[in-house]
Amino acid sequence: MKIGILGTGIVGNTIGTALLKKGHQVMMGSRNANNEKAAAWVKTNDSKASQGSFEDAAIFGEIIFNCTKGEHSIEVITTAANNLAGKILIDVSNPLDFSKGMPPTLFLSNDTSLGETIQNKFPDLKVVKALNTLSCTVMIDPAIISNGDHNLFICGNDIDAKKMVIQLLHDDFGWKTENIIDLGDITNARGTEQILPLWIRLFMVFGNADFNFKIAR
Amino acid sequence: MKIGILGTGIVGNTIGTALLKKGHQVMMGSRNANNEKAAAWVKTNDSKASQGSFEDAAIFGEIIFNCTKGEHSIEVITTAANNLAGKILIDVSNPLDFSKGMPPTLFLSNDTSLGETIQNKFPDLKVVKALNTLSCTVMIDPAIISNGDHNLFICGNDIDAKKMVIQLLHDDFGWKTENIIDLGDITNARGTEQILPLWIRLFMVFGNADFNFKIAR
Repeated sequence: MKIGILGTGIVGNTIGTALLKKGHQVMMGSRNANNEKAAAWVKTNDSKASQGSFEDAAIFGEIIFNCTKGEHSIEVITTAANNLAGKILIDVSNPLDFSKGMPPTLFLSNDTSLGETIQNKFPDLKVVKALNTLSCTVMIDPAIISNGDHNLFICGNDIDAKKMVIQLLHDDFGWKTENIIDLGDITNARGTEQILPLWIRLFMVFGNADFNFKIAR
Repeated sequence: MKIGILGTGIVGNTIGTALLKKGHQVMMGSRNANNEKAAAWVKTNDSKASQGSFEDAAIFGEIIFNCTKGEHSIEVITTAANNLAGKILIDVSNPLDFSKGMPPTLFLSNDTSLGETIQNKFPDLKVVKALNTLSCTVMIDPAIISNGDHNLFICGNDIDAKKMVIQLLHDDFGWKTENIIDLGDITNARGTEQILPLWIRLFMVFGNADFNFKIAR
């Protein structure tokens, strides 16, 4: 499958590399089509890796991952929006505000969320909020902790889009489908984005990001 | 030990009953010293159970549980504040706003929390935020799910107060101390209160409250 990644940070890089290893063609999109981090990533990977502008990545991808920093997400998706209509956008971003230091607060929260703000602003996009509640190392290889027995939360308005994302998470990242909890429509992104303040505090207590939420029942 | 409970709802009732079974003396405090729910609770329990006003419960208890609804907590603690100086208050409440229906939003969140608001308003009180992230059935008997292997989050400014609360949670409710995660000072209540929006959504998906967060590592 052709996959577009918006963002050249550690999250986009890690997800992109994992998808290449599974045989997908991946284009990493950035503000500048000649972005150095994207170029380095293309160089260390195989011929299925490419780079371009956000717009290029949006045109290229059948599925798009939003791996930009939350504060830039709306602006970036606006840039690429003409080429995203009808496509699935997996929104991995979080509305983190680090302007007052650690731990960050959320610049959108409680009665809204970044996921639903994106969906409302770009109604032709099929936004699926997923993967935003854990580190990228665990996202793409859940088995590195607790034999993979912990949870992912997913939400979005389009049921077929969620099914396709769950399939990708299973096939390409190794998530057991029974560990993926569908919370319902995109407004439920409020729930998953709001656990970031706890995630970050746990990260500060543990001193590492090798953990994830599991719902014990 | 003498324990005061603020609030006569299901949470206060469940916690109070569990503490009685462990041999503690428990007074349930309410707005009206003759509250009917408190009277019924006293009647169905042994002679170690008693009822009174919020002020009576504050005088009586060596440790106080705040089991009032979040929207009433500040008002209730104000009523009892003269008799709370130097005491430990275990804050089980959450700032839930149900005024727009389910799922609720939080009336304090993100850059503050109910726990720290109580601590700031009543600096002589030793506020320990705990037990606010799970149902009362699981609070007092963690072993009913996953053999008790899931987590509690605790925070507060007074280290000795937290130690005493951890001891109580272990001795009286059966929590394994290694499953209690100390997040640090009371500002970390922002982290634990903000997972309520996800907890409630999970409750809506599962149709029951027999679950809890576990941090898989």
